[in-house]
Amino acid sequence: MGELPTRLEVEDLQRNLQQVQDLLRRQKLVEGLAGRLAELRAKLERLHSADIASILESLPLEERLAVWGLVGAEREGEILLELSDAVRESLIASMDSQELVAATGALEADQIADLAPDLPAQVVQDVIRALPQEEREQLRAALSYREGTVGALMDFDQIIVREDATLEAATRTLRGLDELPAHTDQLFVVDREGRLRGTLPLARLIVTDLERAVGEVVLSESVTLHPEDLAEDAAKAFERYNLVSAPVADHFGRLVGRLTVNTVMDYIRQRSAEAQLAESGLREEEDIFAPVLNSFKNRWTWLAINLVTAFIASRVIGAFEGSIEKLVALAALMPIVAGIGGNSGNQTITMIVRALALGQIQASYWLKLIGKELGVATLNGVLWGTLLGVAAFLLYGNVALGGVMALAMLLTLLLAAAMGVTIPLIRARLGRDPAVGASVLITACTDSGGFFIFLGLATLFLL
Amino acid sequence: MGELPTRLEVEDLQRNLQQVQDLLRRQKLVEGLAGRLAELRAKLERLHSADIASILESLPLEERLAVWGLVGAEREGEILLELSDAVRESLIASMDSQELVAATGALEADQIADLAPDLPAQVVQDVIRALPQEEREQLRAALSYREGTVGALMDFDQIIVREDATLEAATRTLRGLDELPAHTDQLFVVDREGRLRGTLPLARLIVTDLERAVGEVVLSESVTLHPEDLAEDAAKAFERYNLVSAPVADHFGRLVGRLTVNTVMDYIRQRSAEAQLAESGLREEEDIFAPVLNSFKNRWTWLAINLVTAFIASRVIGAFEGSIEKLVALAALMPIVAGIGGNSGNQTITMIVRALALGQIQASYWLKLIGKELGVATLNGVLWGTLLGVAAFLLYGNVALGGVMALAMLLTLLLAAAMGVTIPLIRARLGRDPAVGASVLITACTDSGGFFIFLGLATLFLL
Repeated sequence: MGELPTRLEVEDLQRNLQQVQDLLRRQKLVEGLAGRLAELRAKLERLHSADIASILESLPLEERLAVWGLVGAEREGEILLELSDAVRESLIASMDSQELVAATGALEADQIADLAPDLPAQVVQDVIRALPQEEREQLRAALSYREGTVGALMDFDQIIVREDATLEAATRTLRGLDELPAHTDQLFVVDREGRLRGTLPLARLIVTDLERAVGEVVLSESVTLHPEDLAEDAAKAFERYNLVSAPVADHFGRLVGRLTVNTVMDYIRQRSAEAQLAESGLREEEDIFAPVLNSFKNRWTWLAINLVTAFIASRVIGAFEGSIEKLVALAALMPIVAGIGGNSGNQTITMIVRALALGQIQASYWLKLIGKELGVATLNGVLWGTLLGVAAFLLYGNVALGGVMALAMLLTLLLAAAMGVTIPLIRARLGRDPAVGASVLITACTDSGGFFIFLGLATLFLL
Repeated sequence: MGELPTRLEVEDLQRNLQQVQDLLRRQKLVEGLAGRLAELRAKLERLHSADIASILESLPLEERLAVWGLVGAEREGEILLELSDAVRESLIASMDSQELVAATGALEADQIADLAPDLPAQVVQDVIRALPQEEREQLRAALSYREGTVGALMDFDQIIVREDATLEAATRTLRGLDELPAHTDQLFVVDREGRLRGTLPLARLIVTDLERAVGEVVLSESVTLHPEDLAEDAAKAFERYNLVSAPVADHFGRLVGRLTVNTVMDYIRQRSAEAQLAESGLREEEDIFAPVLNSFKNRWTWLAINLVTAFIASRVIGAFEGSIEKLVALAALMPIVAGIGGNSGNQTITMIVRALALGQIQASYWLKLIGKELGVATLNGVLWGTLLGVAAFLLYGNVALGGVMALAMLLTLLLAAAMGVTIPLIRARLGRDPAVGASVLITACTDSGGFFIFLGLATLFLL
């Protein structure tokens, strides 16, 4: 019985690899090394492609290429599919055209389409030329849909039965196949013109009298996707209706492919990873052992944007240098106001962005939302403002300074709340993704705003 | 043929509801109102529970309770299961014990276990008492496993066949059921003692001669989970091996339940939502229309922690007040150094935390990782440091100030890189979740550190 096979076996393999590396370094026991390599190769052969991919992800470039060299050519395509973009690129760069054509050619049309953006154009051409007619058309179709649509995610492994066939005949069709494609939980039922009529779950096929016609037991109410549907919407449908597979039909109702739950799950994982990375200003998933320059390229954009917003905040402070000169305590206290404002604004904007993504915010409740967030901000402002005001008074023995601190805290939190609701709603209204750069935008507002409010109040009341 | 049913229908429904609310407010057309309510109730009846849950999530409390009142009692349990914790609590608070017992009693044992933590203890007692013996034991079992384990996520809808039965007999068992449970892609095969021998995929059952014995065609190599396995590891197994369902067996090899892909997908979504929220210092998913006090409770912890770290940073500045008094430009420039340091440190720590979660970091490559991150930091430091140094010189006409700015930028980025790698690795070594509070910790380091480095260098070289 196979246990959860991963953790221990993978660690064992990595220990083995380490030993091989040690041997390599010492260059002493050449025969020993050959034996170890053979052992390692045999172990790799027994591992699932996804597990090998996971090992490759966790190795520095040199060791990664060594392991890659031990992988059988017939599995390379499948493993490439499981890798993150960055690591995949590092391996593709190490392969020549012939190897790439061989690795890719063994895949199915929808899988080739997934790899195509990372392959040299000539390799893609060669692969297309070598495909049988039907698969060539499937590949062309798959390549024609935009990223993030159902068309780009679907596969072509659907099993089709005609509505006028008997269940007996449908069962014979199934028996004729060596093995059913993964995630075949239902057959797709079409009419004479190839138009989708519905689905026939295997579970239903098993419990129904085989002499009946497919058309009598077809489920015509099943969820149908279109190639242009957003993958995100399809993912929600899979979650809500607990689907394992769903048919994809074009505008004429003709079945063109299917979407399966494993593809949807990969998509959800990838999207959530991207969202997390984007929040910290990383453009895409990074190979942790990437060359310094690649990492730099992945990160510089947001650092540059941050530089600009920090510079603006600095100029706001610059405008009040006269005040700071007279009361230097302001310099020490101002980052507290801006910092708490930023933290609180990020809380609000994260919640609103999430609610927008889930489709939970109706235009009619906009004012209600702002009202609620301003309420929370007032509560926070009075509490933390008072606390900080007292702390400022105790530190500097200046009552007015404490008062300014408390008032500035309250006003900055109100600003953070208002902006935290307004920025994502406006961006959504303009058709932008409200998640992108949300944190940078709100922090820019609360930094410059917080400095301005605190130093402005101080200049008004203290000097 | 059912299209993706959600968006338009849901909006239509919400428009309807708005009209009902308008009517309610005007209190004019009482007969009209009754008709509208009946219409709305009929529409709700046609919607999937998950869609009703989505509508409830997007309504303010008053309207939410109005719609909840229109939902048939027999569906309340299912809908409660689909809601986020916060919204679920708001509805449970509106129901009396009798309603809760009725709503919960209609569910299956694993579903009751999911709701139990949110229900009054008395209600749970009453529900348990009313259950048949077998389900009562299942519920007790489900409640006994910690959150985040397979045991807490599994259900009890497995269909079991004996290995010595024929496929013919297995098929008869299936025919005897009204309907197969969702996600039944395989049957679970046990021996006379109830020990799991493997699985029998429906697809295999269909294509195999019915006179053969189950034991001859059983897949004994299938992935098996244990109730104590971490849900996260199980989720990885589902993704890697493209599973639809997996058997859960205890330490004696006895089948105790099964895990299905829809549960895993929900779990992944929830975890990724929590991670995103935690990064902004929200303890849990928030009802966007929650009372101000509830939202405050959800957010105050991290604001308080942030307050402490901001206060420490402020005291670092306070120690250099003498220097700022002499050269007030320092006050305007210091937030830039700390800000860019924080942003860059967050990039590093996000990447490391993610790689740790994916199991990609081996202890042996620790130095290699630090080396790489220090390399990226040096590149960034030289580039942005020079840029900011020149800007500082142009603004204040002070070459030495520009030099200090550039050097402080470089050193702060190196600090951020070193801390960004070290903090999560140490926390992981200590057995803590490296993701929790990562952003707050690194920002605390870069703020205090950045201020100290910049003001310290300025005091050394400029005054």
